[in-house]
Amino acid sequence: MDITAAVIIIGNEILSGRTADANLSYLGRRLAELGINLREARIVADSEEGIVAAVNACRAAYHYVFTTGGIGPTHDDITTRSIAKALGVPIERNPEAVAKLTAYYTTSALNEARLKMAEIPVGAVLIDNPISSAPGFQIGNVFVLPGVPAIMQVMFEGIRHRLTGGPPILSRTVSTVLTEGILAAGLEGIQKRYPELVIGSYPFVRQGRLGVSLVVRGTEVEALDRAAEQIRALVRSLGGCLLEDD
Amino acid sequence: MDITAAVIIIGNEILSGRTADANLSYLGRRLAELGINLREARIVADSEEGIVAAVNACRAAYHYVFTTGGIGPTHDDITTRSIAKALGVPIERNPEAVAKLTAYYTTSALNEARLKMAEIPVGAVLIDNPISSAPGFQIGNVFVLPGVPAIMQVMFEGIRHRLTGGPPILSRTVSTVLTEGILAAGLEGIQKRYPELVIGSYPFVRQGRLGVSLVVRGTEVEALDRAAEQIRALVRSLGGCLLEDD
Repeated sequence: MDITAAVIIIGNEILSGRTADANLSYLGRRLAELGINLREARIVADSEEGIVAAVNACRAAYHYVFTTGGIGPTHDDITTRSIAKALGVPIERNPEAVAKLTAYYTTSALNEARLKMAEIPVGAVLIDNPISSAPGFQIGNVFVLPGVPAIMQVMFEGIRHRLTGGPPILSRTVSTVLTEGILAAGLEGIQKRYPELVIGSYPFVRQGRLGVSLVVRGTEVEALDRAAEQIRALVRSLGGCLLEDD
Repeated sequence: MDITAAVIIIGNEILSGRTADANLSYLGRRLAELGINLREARIVADSEEGIVAAVNACRAAYHYVFTTGGIGPTHDDITTRSIAKALGVPIERNPEAVAKLTAYYTTSALNEARLKMAEIPVGAVLIDNPISSAPGFQIGNVFVLPGVPAIMQVMFEGIRHRLTGGPPILSRTVSTVLTEGILAAGLEGIQKRYPELVIGSYPFVRQGRLGVSLVVRGTEVEALDRAAEQIRALVRSLGGCLLEDD
């Protein structure tokens, strides 16, 4: 069975173009390694309505949902209350989360704003934050993580054991400066011979020249290697050079 | 009236983590300059079902929808047929698009795969591609653009005149190594004084230290400048240094 996931990135700063998201590519790679198929990502504003809609759509459609961003102490951090609303559960000041914050901050530094980070939906399981103490949480199939990439990544590694994937999703890449239009017919033939694999064609511009990376993805090593070899043969038969695989 | 938009990024390569998307931050910045509020982005796989669902949800909810990716000649380029399906219109070999491709390619190079790029939903208006000739198209409020950033950007600039925005969405940024928990209460006070602005707090890790960028967004220059000055005063009153604004 295909195990599926969605990522929901919460934050005006990504939509305004101010900040380039760095979490999606990390989660995409790690989930593939864990045999979980990331099928969709949504980037939503710091808006309760937007977060509720995205969380409810994705948690119904996919096995796992990962959110990033919006769990800090400031007024624009509304992820926790929005997710509680999406799931129809109340929020409580979680004693375990308070203990974590208390151990991290001095008593005087643990102000009301920081204690907001201990407000967790009832029924959630905490996700440990070994860097700055404020926890994430899991409720049902929704995993709530922070937006700062260095912290998000450490916390994701801490929940790996809660995730059940399938066989790792592997890939092989063949790159050439041939253009897609020349390769398309042969490539489609190879895709038809390997229906269990997904072959993608990704054009790029490097030093002013159009080239293409041909990427085969799937879970079966032998089929991947055979298909990649057929793609290399196709490129050679069309007079193309193989670039170093990326 | 708030003019709104969504971006739909189409491509397995973004979800697999292989390729970091570069189009969202460009579109987010440009739309803000044009006074169009980018409210949501979705990243969907090369799947007809996924594209149809995202396009139909977004074109109903927002004034403008921009898609990137999936309009090339290879078998995995299924954006055009998926959008035609979403809108319930047939596809035709568009004579204007054929003429553009014919002018660009030699007769022998214009093979069936490349002619696929001239297949356009009936009723669409073409979007000119001055780099590699294969056009995008606009149908209703949906603008279909390619995924290669250099080409997407040139094509987006070519459709600016078709877009009606509001006043430009401007921002001011104040950065400091103070942490969010110290700033939260004062920042919320400033947000309450300026309900017409949106104040965001974006923590970062630089050289191992946690800091924060405080970003004010809105359309009114005087209010922006006053709110930014109050944020700088808040930082100073808490003993924080102002970093160079990013």
